[in-house]
Amino acid sequence: MKPIDFWFSIGSTYTCLTVMRLPAYARKHGLAFNWRPFNVRTILVEQNNIPFAGKPVKAAYMWRDIARRAGRYGLSVTVPAPYPLEHLPLANQVALLGMQEGWGQEYVMATYRRWFQDGQPAGSEPNLSQSLREIGQKPERIIEAATAPAIEGALANETEEARRLGVFGAPSFVADGEVFWGDDRLDDAVSWARKGRVI
Amino acid sequence: MKPIDFWFSIGSTYTCLTVMRLPAYARKHGLAFNWRPFNVRTILVEQNNIPFAGKPVKAAYMWRDIARRAGRYGLSVTVPAPYPLEHLPLANQVALLGMQEGWGQEYVMATYRRWFQDGQPAGSEPNLSQSLREIGQKPERIIEAATAPAIEGALANETEEARRLGVFGAPSFVADGEVFWGDDRLDDAVSWARKGRVI
Repeated sequence: MKPIDFWFSIGSTYTCLTVMRLPAYARKHGLAFNWRPFNVRTILVEQNNIPFAGKPVKAAYMWRDIARRAGRYGLSVTVPAPYPLEHLPLANQVALLGMQEGWGQEYVMATYRRWFQDGQPAGSEPNLSQSLREIGQKPERIIEAATAPAIEGALANETEEARRLGVFGAPSFVADGEVFWGDDRLDDAVSWARKGRVI
Repeated sequence: MKPIDFWFSIGSTYTCLTVMRLPAYARKHGLAFNWRPFNVRTILVEQNNIPFAGKPVKAAYMWRDIARRAGRYGLSVTVPAPYPLEHLPLANQVALLGMQEGWGQEYVMATYRRWFQDGQPAGSEPNLSQSLREIGQKPERIIEAATAPAIEGALANETEEARRLGVFGAPSFVADGEVFWGDDRLDDAVSWARKGRVI
């Protein structure tokens, strides 16, 4: 079975649920996931698909649903978390650099914990530097490297690849070319990867 | 345990999945659901929450997701079905009259089958009259009664009650005042009704 691509943006609220449960889920089910940060905001704006801004009833429901689902997964979250993020691109440029260097998952989990448990926006200080220090990385070097044209361009390329695949929101899973949108479609994606259908 | 309110609009695409599986689901789990038609379009427009119009990538995904989920439930659907419905209010006024008279669920299931299996838009002819005849009702009497001010007003009242509860989309389930949105939240709603939390 080929690995499943996990497309996400730090900045997506429901992605919190996936990030916090995916490593244990992968171990339990003997699965591999490729963590692929992209800029979901670029695609949402392009497609006139604004999930919560200007929609207070739907936004209030989203926080409530995330809290309930976190309880189901045994996760601790404090909602509403600060939203939307001011520095979504930087947060994901750091994540992409981390995926290249091997500390990406740790950083993403650390920054989501600070965002959803301590109320510190991801991508901004103190979340950014503290998350990096927590996982043993030096913020100065990382932030310089993550804001260089090579990583900016790499995030744009990944965003273009997500768009090409038909990814329009986050989190999404792509299994054998098939797109599954939402933390709640993780089981469906795994079923597709294993059996070519949703069971 | 109090019955769970199933808020829906004929016109909602994902509601097809719920309508087609809910009677068997309710029997299997020993549950009661109140089927409550309302006009979701009124609330979507008010809240600037337009799910698919002008969003072709998301709309294409929605049809694909519905087809996959229908397969999971053992249901037969042909997608895309005609969308959006021209006569959403009439379709739901008929449903509301049917709930009052005791043939509402049969009508809703029949009209969704014709919409999602035969490609006939619900609320329009021939779907409307054929669905009514199929369940032993006379279209002339029903359409006259369903378009009278009493039923028009009753649908507006139900829409107002849905809004008051925080329902912002369809299908939704309301268990003990708690709102769950989406066919994929049915299990969560049942868990809430039984145990006051999502497990």
